[in-house]
Amino acid sequence: MTVTATQTTPDLYPSRVAPEPILAERRDPVLHGEPAGALSRYQRDRFEADGFLAFPGFFSGDEVRELQREAERLRNLDELRGRDDVITEPESDEIRSVFRIHRTSEVFDRLTRDPRILAKAREILGGDVYIHQSRINYKPGFRGKEFYWHSDFETWHVEDGMPRMRAISCSIALTPNYGFNGPLMLVPGSHRYFLSCVGETPEEHYKESLKKQEVGVPDPEGLETLIELGGGIAVPEGPAGSITLFECNTMHGSASNITPFPRTNLFVVYNSVENALVEPFSGQRPRPEYLGERGEPAPLEPAA
Amino acid sequence: MTVTATQTTPDLYPSRVAPEPILAERRDPVLHGEPAGALSRYQRDRFEADGFLAFPGFFSGDEVRELQREAERLRNLDELRGRDDVITEPESDEIRSVFRIHRTSEVFDRLTRDPRILAKAREILGGDVYIHQSRINYKPGFRGKEFYWHSDFETWHVEDGMPRMRAISCSIALTPNYGFNGPLMLVPGSHRYFLSCVGETPEEHYKESLKKQEVGVPDPEGLETLIELGGGIAVPEGPAGSITLFECNTMHGSASNITPFPRTNLFVVYNSVENALVEPFSGQRPRPEYLGERGEPAPLEPAA
Repeated sequence: MTVTATQTTPDLYPSRVAPEPILAERRDPVLHGEPAGALSRYQRDRFEADGFLAFPGFFSGDEVRELQREAERLRNLDELRGRDDVITEPESDEIRSVFRIHRTSEVFDRLTRDPRILAKAREILGGDVYIHQSRINYKPGFRGKEFYWHSDFETWHVEDGMPRMRAISCSIALTPNYGFNGPLMLVPGSHRYFLSCVGETPEEHYKESLKKQEVGVPDPEGLETLIELGGGIAVPEGPAGSITLFECNTMHGSASNITPFPRTNLFVVYNSVENALVEPFSGQRPRPEYLGERGEPAPLEPAA
Repeated sequence: MTVTATQTTPDLYPSRVAPEPILAERRDPVLHGEPAGALSRYQRDRFEADGFLAFPGFFSGDEVRELQREAERLRNLDELRGRDDVITEPESDEIRSVFRIHRTSEVFDRLTRDPRILAKAREILGGDVYIHQSRINYKPGFRGKEFYWHSDFETWHVEDGMPRMRAISCSIALTPNYGFNGPLMLVPGSHRYFLSCVGETPEEHYKESLKKQEVGVPDPEGLETLIELGGGIAVPEGPAGSITLFECNTMHGSASNITPFPRTNLFVVYNSVENALVEPFSGQRPRPEYLGERGEPAPLEPAA
């Protein structure tokens, strides 16, 4: 690892440096803000304990249909193919992900600033937030690939230079999440530990890791420990329009999908404006902006 | 396809011959025997309609522990490694399957002749039965591979020469089946149709197909139709010791398992003695006996 001269922020969560994985206590609060009415006392407690909150059927039928139409439109937009921020399946040409949907689509821009979601993000993160990353994932039926366990924060810290754990993801389901169509699986309580990974980060790792993650994955023993500590695996199910808020360090993954039922999800990552990116802790060049927004963060305003 | 001179049985279920898949009605009964007290009226109706019956917690704790010990013993038996009827994971050396467990293990021989299970098999199949195939599958945690949708009968008919649909499988779980650890998924009602597959059977196909199925898999449209006709996908969950009886033509598969929870299952295939194997309908040489018992069938006697 080469540490560049520009890295002046202390590394509270070193990863991919030690020869063995280390399971350490989290060094940041989970709830950064005081109660502000966006979450109930019970929801705050659950988020603090579990590292996620599921809201089945959050969006109404009309809202969901508008989002689904927009997702289909993007998927068939020929001008998107070949763009850096559009990812295709390893073994086919199908679009798997489109990044930066809050800049590519007006509908999704408004969605990311939905007042109900934004208020929750602000309460959890304690004040102004901006979008670190946004994307839509199309997981096709029949041949949808698995996505191995990972902590997003581990990658964002090492490869993007996110200094602290003060970000959350919002997953928005545009198709029903069943137990059998490769749904998001989370390890409750795993956000309260930092499990460092082993192995150096290859140059331009993101080009491969978006298709299949090999570096930055937890070791089996560490994962087993987290599951024992937290008491299992949670699989939020629900109709299209359900949302799940999860902490940036919550361990998650998904199995393959051999059913005909595709799974389309939007992801929006909210980061505190006080947690803006510094130089990557890997010492390497930062990943492209569509994976982690850099520069002076502009606080999000709720959509009208 | 070369048809050998020895094939004299009419092919009621041609597959891997037509250029397009064909969805045809089943030409055999589902329940071959009259009510004999082994299944309730309700269970008979459900098996006829769905093509499977789940019995969560069928075996007692003591019974399960004996079976688990025997499974562990076999898995660690060095003399099994390298045997033709022992299959290892594609990307590792771990044992994935041991075939012919009713001949390799006294404990499992008794299990396959458990009077409670045997009576159900005899009632469904209408009289004397023998074991077409038996095996144990170890699906490891973390990196357990998916098994794509298939009808067992399609393979047994084409590659082994099983003439009619008059066989059932019994799956016995030695680990808990959760929704998230790559459990058996079934398509209710799919056993009432025969969905032919496309593509010629390669010579010695079984050597590859046991690791990853490429030929003899249903087309996406056909599978979608079966799921629509039957109303979905069923995923029997339950503790170790649960069993599932399913019809030889019921479409089933399983997703990958990235959780630490392994999944170990025994499979016993009961076939009617009146449905003994003939020459494979592919016209090729039959698969080895550990995949499909040939010769004069010896009726099973219940264990003492």
